[in-house]
Amino acid sequence: MDYVYGPGKNHLFVPGPVNIPEPVIRAMNRNNEDYRSPAIPAMTKTLLEDVKKIFKTTTGTPFMIPTTGTGAWESALTNTLSPGDRIVSFLIGQFSLLWIDQQQRLKFNVDVVESEWGQGANLDILAEKLAADHSHTIKAICIVHNETATGVTNNLATVRKLLDHYSHPALLLVDGVSSICALDFRMDEWGVDVALTGSQKALSLPTGIGIVCASPKALEASKSAKSVRVFFDWNDYLKFYKMGTFWPYTPSIQLLYGLRAALDLIFEEGLDNVIARHSRLGTATRLAVEAWGLKNCTQKEEWYSDTVTAVLVPPYIDSAEIVKRAWKRYNLSLGLGLNKVAGKVFRIGHLGNLNELQLLGCLAGVEMILKDVGYPVKLGSGVAAACAYLQNNIPMITSRV
Amino acid sequence: MDYVYGPGKNHLFVPGPVNIPEPVIRAMNRNNEDYRSPAIPAMTKTLLEDVKKIFKTTTGTPFMIPTTGTGAWESALTNTLSPGDRIVSFLIGQFSLLWIDQQQRLKFNVDVVESEWGQGANLDILAEKLAADHSHTIKAICIVHNETATGVTNNLATVRKLLDHYSHPALLLVDGVSSICALDFRMDEWGVDVALTGSQKALSLPTGIGIVCASPKALEASKSAKSVRVFFDWNDYLKFYKMGTFWPYTPSIQLLYGLRAALDLIFEEGLDNVIARHSRLGTATRLAVEAWGLKNCTQKEEWYSDTVTAVLVPPYIDSAEIVKRAWKRYNLSLGLGLNKVAGKVFRIGHLGNLNELQLLGCLAGVEMILKDVGYPVKLGSGVAAACAYLQNNIPMITSRV
Amino acid sequence: MDYVYGPGKNHLFVPGPVNIPEPVIRAMNRNNEDYRSPAIPAMTKTLLEDVKKIFKTTTGTPFMIPTTGTGAWESALTNTLSPGDRIVSFLIGQFSLLWIDQQQRLKFNVDVVESEWGQGANLDILAEKLAADHSHTIKAICIVHNETATGVTNNLATVRKLLDHYSHPALLLVDGVSSICALDFRMDEWGVDVALTGSQKALSLPTGIGIVCASPKALEASKSAKSVRVFFDWNDYLKFYKMGTFWPYTPSIQLLYGLRAALDLIFEEGLDNVIARHSRLGTATRLAVEAWGLKNCTQKEEWYSDTVTAVLVPPYIDSAEIVKRAWKRYNLSLGLGLNKVAGKVFRIGHLGNLNELQLLGCLAGVEMILKDVGYPVKLGSGVAAACAYLQNNIPMITSRV
Amino acid sequence: MDYVYGPGKNHLFVPGPVNIPEPVIRAMNRNNEDYRSPAIPAMTKTLLEDVKKIFKTTTGTPFMIPTTGTGAWESALTNTLSPGDRIVSFLIGQFSLLWIDQQQRLKFNVDVVESEWGQGANLDILAEKLAADHSHTIKAICIVHNETATGVTNNLATVRKLLDHYSHPALLLVDGVSSICALDFRMDEWGVDVALTGSQKALSLPTGIGIVCASPKALEASKSAKSVRVFFDWNDYLKFYKMGTFWPYTPSIQLLYGLRAALDLIFEEGLDNVIARHSRLGTATRLAVEAWGLKNCTQKEEWYSDTVTAVLVPPYIDSAEIVKRAWKRYNLSLGLGLNKVAGKVFRIGHLGNLNELQLLGCLAGVEMILKDVGYPVKLGSGVAAACAYLQNNIPMITSRV
Repeated sequence: MDYVYGPGKNHLFVPGPVNIPEPVIRAMNRNNEDYRSPAIPAMTKTLLEDVKKIFKTTTGTPFMIPTTGTGAWESALTNTLSPGDRIVSFLIGQFSLLWIDQQQRLKFNVDVVESEWGQGANLDILAEKLAADHSHTIKAICIVHNETATGVTNNLATVRKLLDHYSHPALLLVDGVSSICALDFRMDEWGVDVALTGSQKALSLPTGIGIVCASPKALEASKSAKSVRVFFDWNDYLKFYKMGTFWPYTPSIQLLYGLRAALDLIFEEGLDNVIARHSRLGTATRLAVEAWGLKNCTQKEEWYSDTVTAVLVPPYIDSAEIVKRAWKRYNLSLGLGLNKVAGKVFRIGHLGNLNELQLLGCLAGVEMILKDVGYPVKLGSGVAAACAYLQNNIPMITSRV
Repeated sequence: MDYVYGPGKNHLFVPGPVNIPEPVIRAMNRNNEDYRSPAIPAMTKTLLEDVKKIFKTTTGTPFMIPTTGTGAWESALTNTLSPGDRIVSFLIGQFSLLWIDQQQRLKFNVDVVESEWGQGANLDILAEKLAADHSHTIKAICIVHNETATGVTNNLATVRKLLDHYSHPALLLVDGVSSICALDFRMDEWGVDVALTGSQKALSLPTGIGIVCASPKALEASKSAKSVRVFFDWNDYLKFYKMGTFWPYTPSIQLLYGLRAALDLIFEEGLDNVIARHSRLGTATRLAVEAWGLKNCTQKEEWYSDTVTAVLVPPYIDSAEIVKRAWKRYNLSLGLGLNKVAGKVFRIGHLGNLNELQLLGCLAGVEMILKDVGYPVKLGSGVAAACAYLQNNIPMITSRV
Repeated sequence: MDYVYGPGKNHLFVPGPVNIPEPVIRAMNRNNEDYRSPAIPAMTKTLLEDVKKIFKTTTGTPFMIPTTGTGAWESALTNTLSPGDRIVSFLIGQFSLLWIDQQQRLKFNVDVVESEWGQGANLDILAEKLAADHSHTIKAICIVHNETATGVTNNLATVRKLLDHYSHPALLLVDGVSSICALDFRMDEWGVDVALTGSQKALSLPTGIGIVCASPKALEASKSAKSVRVFFDWNDYLKFYKMGTFWPYTPSIQLLYGLRAALDLIFEEGLDNVIARHSRLGTATRLAVEAWGLKNCTQKEEWYSDTVTAVLVPPYIDSAEIVKRAWKRYNLSLGLGLNKVAGKVFRIGHLGNLNELQLLGCLAGVEMILKDVGYPVKLGSGVAAACAYLQNNIPMITSRV
Repeated sequence: MDYVYGPGKNHLFVPGPVNIPEPVIRAMNRNNEDYRSPAIPAMTKTLLEDVKKIFKTTTGTPFMIPTTGTGAWESALTNTLSPGDRIVSFLIGQFSLLWIDQQQRLKFNVDVVESEWGQGANLDILAEKLAADHSHTIKAICIVHNETATGVTNNLATVRKLLDHYSHPALLLVDGVSSICALDFRMDEWGVDVALTGSQKALSLPTGIGIVCASPKALEASKSAKSVRVFFDWNDYLKFYKMGTFWPYTPSIQLLYGLRAALDLIFEEGLDNVIARHSRLGTATRLAVEAWGLKNCTQKEEWYSDTVTAVLVPPYIDSAEIVKRAWKRYNLSLGLGLNKVAGKVFRIGHLGNLNELQLLGCLAGVEMILKDVGYPVKLGSGVAAACAYLQNNIPMITSRV
């Protein structure tokens, strides 16, 4: 049953959930199993080891929680902080906004640093706040690595530098939902204390696992954190880790096998090659946008995102109309503009298990839609610009050489 | 990849996760989709309507939360109660124990009514407490409909009668994880205020949806409940229900299609026929246990469960050995005894999309295992007793007549 | 297991086997069944009725044989002809060549009418032969509707007109392997006596069913045809059709369910809309080829094929290198040039369940490859030409309006 | 879509098509691929090597033909024999009958040796014929290893001994459809010249590959065999084997991956263990039949089949009624009695990827059906007898110890 069948493949270019590769769909095509048999713990053990690699951590402790990114946020916060704790949080788009809303509802004292949507986190203000915080009232810095609503990537290395510069002990909590496994992310090197992602993003799985990784410092903090928590409590996991059964409650058997297959594909391609592929896809998309004569919502090159591009449309066009037409005429799924940028941007998600020709099909589609809605695009211009770059940069497929 | 391949089908008789029917596996065999396109809300709308039928409610409001049963518990509690609220909760086995643990960690004032494991909730004590509670300090009664650890089904109709008798306004919160869609459950008729189940139980799906259904009274209570909650907050859902987009965060596309298929199968068979089938499976299992000369962990017939049977083994046998052998020699998955009954019982789950011949294969296997571990069973005896009953009671398959 | 994994989707543009739509993959994702139960005959009955629609026949009798196109050819010939029979057959490319080879090995007296590869069947010579054949020694005309090797579509209406003009009773046997369900094909109107196709072509299924449809005249001929046949014998099928069990030997359960789903999709889209979609894809491809400054192997517009385009490359380029690079660098599968046109053409298959954005991704890929191999293509030129046409011609998706 | 949905698993106990293991279903859950890319030939090469192992041959040449068992028969005959050739063929049941019918229609001079249905091939008569055939007019001996209609296994070693004893050069052609991969079969040791099976039997795949294996002597014979053949011609395969592309026409991509997975499972279990498992299943079934007080259609122990048991019912019962009831009430698929034994026997297929508990569920079901149709069976008796044997003989699952 499909509600709205269209011929051919759906071209899925929302920034999540993303395309699932066939080997992963196959791996999940299975009956349930007893998760208390020796098989599931054995597999879980390999997953916990391997999942650390995508965070680039050797010292972190991962938790694969049956939840979404929103739940992963909650797990990161409630396990490390106590109600009333002061935290610095950056508002730069819809997803950082939602996280801040959560932080406030969880009763933290949130010191919001706002930027114009399209800009990155204002780290100058962070520097000021850290400099001023001699008594270390700031317990955590919460930052979205990649703001999915605007296509802005924040510079985490600089955040770490600032914390180090001021010898500030605040925890560094990072939403890596639309970055980890696609953008350069280095948990250990950057001293990230909690990093998190969701299975339906760059891992290219269905929704259903919120992966949270805690540094030793974060684990230590969890011992005294007073936020009320049960379902999201790391302690329950740690207890079962010790017993070797791993699961305080029932995991999705299918997602575990799916994650196994997804990690295998990532390691076969090579995590750095995966990241390089995302860089190619991001660059190609931006070149197309430029060729179309349109502006990137992201205001400076330093914040360009390699996983999602938010494209500003001229004021006489409603970007929601572009998204609607994409779906109704071209079987193409694009991302809407959200909240402050609703109607003003449409988004091209270019993350996950995706290759260049898939993106080019999408870009060709966008050109036709732009024409549909009255924008005087030169057909072929974006594809030409993207191809000119890609033809010089796509590597041979290793397994086929 | 399978960690521990064995020839033929795995015989899955743990009381969850349970066997997924082929049409449901097929329905989930798909790529991701944009959950913000018109297709997913349209499907969600039908799901929310149809899911009410399995709760037998017309006035309830369902929430399909991307979580497990443990998360569904948390959602039920935090949306209706405030820290410090007095609740009466029945401890009759491992799962009621875990729920009580959660209640305590969520800072409620839990008035625990304990029974011997193998007995049902002590409703006489409930009556006493209700009688004594003139000032209505009891805010909620928390009860597990079917305790999965001991195979005990509580009488919810009596709970409602007591509440009505004493005109007590306490909310009635019910864990229906191993009952709903398999046992007779009547949310509206029994005045249940919050009922919940998990997708991997009688619905016969993978783990991943905690379905929580709230009565109008529970929704009203949620307006003043002070428990801190974000991920599990019903309000976020209600806001999106109003907008017609339904999802405050990303659902699993695959599970939505799977739920659609699962409900279609249940309605095709007829919910009452599904319940009757579980009654046949439960009866047949108990007849086998009796024929083997073994005892049911459940001490009285009134508490017999039609979804899981916990079988007591003689003191000279370790029930864990039975479970281990089942898996290692017969490709049969049985449930372990948990906590107080560890080593003393093994459990046969007979819920979900399961038919009589599947159960008979399991029962034949159990007979051989009993012999393996030194119990002097008469081979064939349990199967004979079950068959004698089933041969008189299995209906023709409607679609094939 | 995949032998040669590459990131993202494989872009499958060989002219068969073609892309299978997800609903069809799902429908085939199942265990075996007893093909003698009432279920399979019931489904087979609907398939036989519905399969006639894709041949546009009401009087034909279809046979769904567990074989390939080659087997379907053999079935068409051996059931209608006797060794030594004179048949006229057109050699215009590799697949007509192979069919002629089969005809000769089956001991028919084959009167071969050869055209240059890239031209259609020479119907003037057919006219001459028919005119001269007063004694009706010609028992059959064998013609490939669409020559997959060169992308040439023959004019069957004209063949029928000639036969009628000369009142010639020869049977008209048509290979519709790469045409039926994609090109305009009218069995009854054009008086085709045997038409055939394979499941892996425009039906968008796996290989495994050769579908052969026989006119009443062909069935009559089969009664006296002396060619030895057993596996391919229509009589065995007819016997089982009469009994209502339909299958003289075991069919593939999975392909039957797959065919059911494939036909459902075709009827949902509308067969004429499917054909119109192929026309758009064919036109768009030809416009791209022209924009690249390359030549179509097909020499005249009247023969242009809407299911496959064979593109001539300049003499200094080896077309096999293009196909190799497509696969090794871009995860794109193109068709090789075969036999006489090996090295000279590469082929773009644009048939089956395929949409415009998929094709545009392919065309963008071809442009990059052309550049890779030293052809001075203007990047974006083909895509631009295709888009200019498509943007004016793609209809809205009916189910989504 | 299912035509006739019933709750729980279908219990598939027809002697083909048989249950497909989940890993094989998974492996086939995929899109089409270009079969001319380097990937498919690479996989095909491993398949051709590995498939020889299930025939126990090192010198044979396998052909994996897109067809059914009937097509495989035709391939075996037409590639090695010429019209008019004298062959000795044994009629012992419906499938040998059908093969003989094919042999006659292919114009061979068939010397039929008939046995009562339920008996094996009469090898005494074979001995006489060989003894008398000084001029070697007999070109081939055609024998079904396991007659699926009656559950009779012929002794191939004895056939070979007779041929050797009389130094007779006749080819030995063996239908191994319901034996290879399940019964002890030794192509090289027994000097079998052509052996064949179908994918939907003990290999536990869907229908669609007829696997034919030819000895060097058979290949030699194919050079002078005058039977007309094209689709089934080994020469076309041999030509493509030499080129390294392997396929004269399009194979099913899905079945190739499925076969890869099926062979992997067989080798993981160990072919001899697979055969031993079939022996256990066969023995258990026969013990049950005996316990029910019913007779095996197979008249002597030496002919007992470990892949299918045909059970004789008392004259007052119509065995077709048993099969019908199995399906309509118990979701159990049993085999009908065919032709001479129609109404007199029902068949239990116990071949393929099947384990003991699955069989016991079937046997319990048969007991209830026997009672349904008025046979005074003692419920549990067959299961008890089978369990008594199995409990002593089932090995531990290697991967789980």
